[in-house]
Amino acid sequence: MSAPRRGAKWWGWGEPEQLPELGAAPLAMLRERLGDLQPGRRPDSIEDVELPAARPLPDAVVRAVGEENVFSGGEDRVRHAAGKGYVDLARLRSGRLEHAPDAVVLPDQARIAPLLAACAAEEVAVVPFGGGTSVVGGVDPRSGGRERVISLDLCRLRDVEVDERSLTARLGAGLLGPEAEGALGSRGFTLGHFPQSFEYATIGGFAATRSAGQASSGYGRFDAMVTSVRLVAPAGALSTPEVPHSAAGPALRELALGSEGVLGVIPDVTVRIHPAPEVSHYEAWMAESWDAGAEIVRALAQAAELPDVIRVSDEEETRISLGLSGRGGIAGAAFNRYLSLRRRASGCLMIVGVLGGREAVARRRALAARRLRAGGAIYLGRSAGAAWDRNRYQGPYLRDTLLDAGCMVETLETAHEWSRLDELYSAVRTALGDALEGQGTPGIVFCHLSHAYADGASLYFTFIACSRVGQEVEQWRAAKQAACEAIVGAGGTITHHHAVGLDHTPYMDAEVGETGLELLRAAKQQLDPAGILNPGKLLP
Amino acid sequence: MSAPRRGAKWWGWGEPEQLPELGAAPLAMLRERLGDLQPGRRPDSIEDVELPAARPLPDAVVRAVGEENVFSGGEDRVRHAAGKGYVDLARLRSGRLEHAPDAVVLPDQARIAPLLAACAAEEVAVVPFGGGTSVVGGVDPRSGGRERVISLDLCRLRDVEVDERSLTARLGAGLLGPEAEGALGSRGFTLGHFPQSFEYATIGGFAATRSAGQASSGYGRFDAMVTSVRLVAPAGALSTPEVPHSAAGPALRELALGSEGVLGVIPDVTVRIHPAPEVSHYEAWMAESWDAGAEIVRALAQAAELPDVIRVSDEEETRISLGLSGRGGIAGAAFNRYLSLRRRASGCLMIVGVLGGREAVARRRALAARRLRAGGAIYLGRSAGAAWDRNRYQGPYLRDTLLDAGCMVETLETAHEWSRLDELYSAVRTALGDALEGQGTPGIVFCHLSHAYADGASLYFTFIACSRVGQEVEQWRAAKQAACEAIVGAGGTITHHHAVGLDHTPYMDAEVGETGLELLRAAKQQLDPAGILNPGKLLP
Repeated sequence: MSAPRRGAKWWGWGEPEQLPELGAAPLAMLRERLGDLQPGRRPDSIEDVELPAARPLPDAVVRAVGEENVFSGGEDRVRHAAGKGYVDLARLRSGRLEHAPDAVVLPDQARIAPLLAACAAEEVAVVPFGGGTSVVGGVDPRSGGRERVISLDLCRLRDVEVDERSLTARLGAGLLGPEAEGALGSRGFTLGHFPQSFEYATIGGFAATRSAGQASSGYGRFDAMVTSVRLVAPAGALSTPEVPHSAAGPALRELALGSEGVLGVIPDVTVRIHPAPEVSHYEAWMAESWDAGAEIVRALAQAAELPDVIRVSDEEETRISLGLSGRGGIAGAAFNRYLSLRRRASGCLMIVGVLGGREAVARRRALAARRLRAGGAIYLGRSAGAAWDRNRYQGPYLRDTLLDAGCMVETLETAHEWSRLDELYSAVRTALGDALEGQGTPGIVFCHLSHAYADGASLYFTFIACSRVGQEVEQWRAAKQAACEAIVGAGGTITHHHAVGLDHTPYMDAEVGETGLELLRAAKQQLDPAGILNPGKLLP
Repeated sequence: MSAPRRGAKWWGWGEPEQLPELGAAPLAMLRERLGDLQPGRRPDSIEDVELPAARPLPDAVVRAVGEENVFSGGEDRVRHAAGKGYVDLARLRSGRLEHAPDAVVLPDQARIAPLLAACAAEEVAVVPFGGGTSVVGGVDPRSGGRERVISLDLCRLRDVEVDERSLTARLGAGLLGPEAEGALGSRGFTLGHFPQSFEYATIGGFAATRSAGQASSGYGRFDAMVTSVRLVAPAGALSTPEVPHSAAGPALRELALGSEGVLGVIPDVTVRIHPAPEVSHYEAWMAESWDAGAEIVRALAQAAELPDVIRVSDEEETRISLGLSGRGGIAGAAFNRYLSLRRRASGCLMIVGVLGGREAVARRRALAARRLRAGGAIYLGRSAGAAWDRNRYQGPYLRDTLLDAGCMVETLETAHEWSRLDELYSAVRTALGDALEGQGTPGIVFCHLSHAYADGASLYFTFIACSRVGQEVEQWRAAKQAACEAIVGAGGTITHHHAVGLDHTPYMDAEVGETGLELLRAAKQQLDPAGILNPGKLLP
């Protein structure tokens, strides 16, 4: 690519024409629950966004990356000024940005090291940028006290090199999810990494943030797919061996994964790939309750019988999903009739997906169904499962609609061992509810369980409230802080797959302790002695 | 425990009474292949071993650990002066040790940190010691230029704490393999970690060296079992969160795992456990060739149908196993008759093990059998599989017998991606053969493939030659060096599960590169600024 990506909504998610409508009934439900919504506003045009004046880059930096690869126009700066969390969108929609990169630069692979060297020498802060879909402030263009900050967009790095015998592929950091899947799919393979951000997030971002996809219980989290990684830092380049496993000391691969642009730039990763599935089978079930659903997932995980996708929505998420989803969604007259016939009007929606060869899918599907039935769940059929599959990437589009309608919408996630998962669930739900209520904007808080392991699972919360116009950031911060403190109090991880960014940095001490932080700082000092890389993220 | 463990052979492996006899036929075969063997010698008694005089420990160190926990008698010093590699045994058998710890100390958990602080202040080198089964010089008592060196024996740390709901257990570092399995087994669980060193190695050692057990394709390598680890270092203690997964930055757990006592002392780990298997099903197959056997394993791994145990012996290992194993072994008249009936007198022995619930074992066993048959392997039955299971820990005992008979016997291992595994196999086999031949001691070199992954597998080599009396170390070094250089040349890992220790340290640069080494040194400097921990290991 010879220019940064520009097509998508700068103020929201995805292509501009994709803005689902909210029907009258869902809107009435929201008004009833949240109070009087004032339609959200946003600038008409990206040119209307005010942002700090761009300071010209030092000549040495321009020379290092090549003049033709430096973009300092307003549109590119706005598009690299924020991620896609609620608070990012609130700031973009306000039409005023406090921070923006002075320029966006697009190095090819060979120019990353010279560029970093020049930036270190010239004291230019560098924010690595993949798809820009961080929801935790991971690409926030902070300068860390320096005069200048650039956004290092990796969109040029798009190589795909497949080892069909070892079932591995080296993938360039700048490939979007669909680009990587497309390149692998054309040869009969899949990576199997399908996070909700799939359409607009990149391979490099998946690695730098330890992303987890919706099929993580089958194909694994992204970090578990990586066999080898490269990391280019101002002080040198790290290349971990391309072997299935090594006992040669600490696993440095695991230091590069999750490094969030703070320790270096990841130009490419080698990942395990799989034969493209013959069959993708999705189905829906209704568990009696949240606890019953979680117990089914625990039983499946501990028997090593997990399907590739498994999710349990809590009662509230189940109601909201049925209420908010439109004609293409999970709800619909037929579905409701089915539920009433089965005499279960409430319960917890479960989605089960099994992918792979025909025979293996049938076998694994049968194993899962047995445990679902044993746990009291009722089969809702394939069409509801297929609807989930069809709509799996729609959440962020719907968020735009809700923001337009005057809502605050945010998600956060955590994970814990099974023995403490329920404590974590209650603590976070209560904290979010109280924090929203306490601001005079009572919210809707719901959750699903996904990314299951033998020893635990992740919880993914969504909260919606009436937006406090002009106070969006404060409103968000109060709720986020309450949730984070509840997570820390219950001993959960501050993030299962959204990463740390700016938002979770204050909780890193609780996560890894002082010795852990000192270790990370020592690694940072070693790799980036000038401290130019992604200031303010990960390390308090 | 109030004293260090003392019962086992100090000059070899396991209980003194366990010293299998070598029959006349195997001995004749060895003589025919290796030349004239001179029976190996060893001192009659541990008291006859010459070792450097013990220097008394500084008072502050004694106070920190408690006087009653300091052992400086000759027997304990000898027993902590070496691991269990060939070169360790050769040195012990020579009756003269160049290095020995000045004392063996047995801290309880609370005293580790004060002890390390005292040692850092007093410049006493510390070699953490679990079961002392390292085969790469990992517990070699080097002082790193300091006046004194102690062996920090973790045998006191034996707590077991089970979370039955999350299927995790916190296990003390000093538990031997059978102690941990026993404690878990009494509650109906298993850890599933069965390396050949199982009977005498410890939980802490498994973690510090990234051990892999024979059932690794089912239960996982040890490092993959660990959910959380603690690391006590002179500069502070690291405790990673007890959650199934976190995306909060680099995985510091993976920095503690494999740290080989160089970064800190691991007092305990939390690991995933499993219901104890209802059924343990072992069977043997004969593949047409090494390549055919490897292809079967690759097919199983890439279809996610791996049994818990899978191994392929090459032609030479197959012949030697049949030739050397006694009445309880895999060979025997019935077995030979079976082979001749099936008209396959040669081939490659495969061992397949499936463990778990009855139904799952039947299902997984059938899946494996289908691919074995499709790959041209012939079923040899359960009794040969059961014989493998019965004798799985016998290798090190047999080594003592071979050393007594005048042989050098050593093993080494590596791993690579499937696309380069054969190149690695040939390179190492040739290098070992040539190096032994070049010394005038033509050897027997054989190999098995085990620890399979979708992207590759490990190779485990054994080599036997006539011992060069008085030149044992030089002879070993020449062969070892040739093999290591061949591994590096073929791009394999210098170690898949034996760890680095002293022996592989010269190859760490090839493994992780200069930037990787600098990162490890930065971590070391942060955690152990005085550099007292396990000098000479891991970091060149």
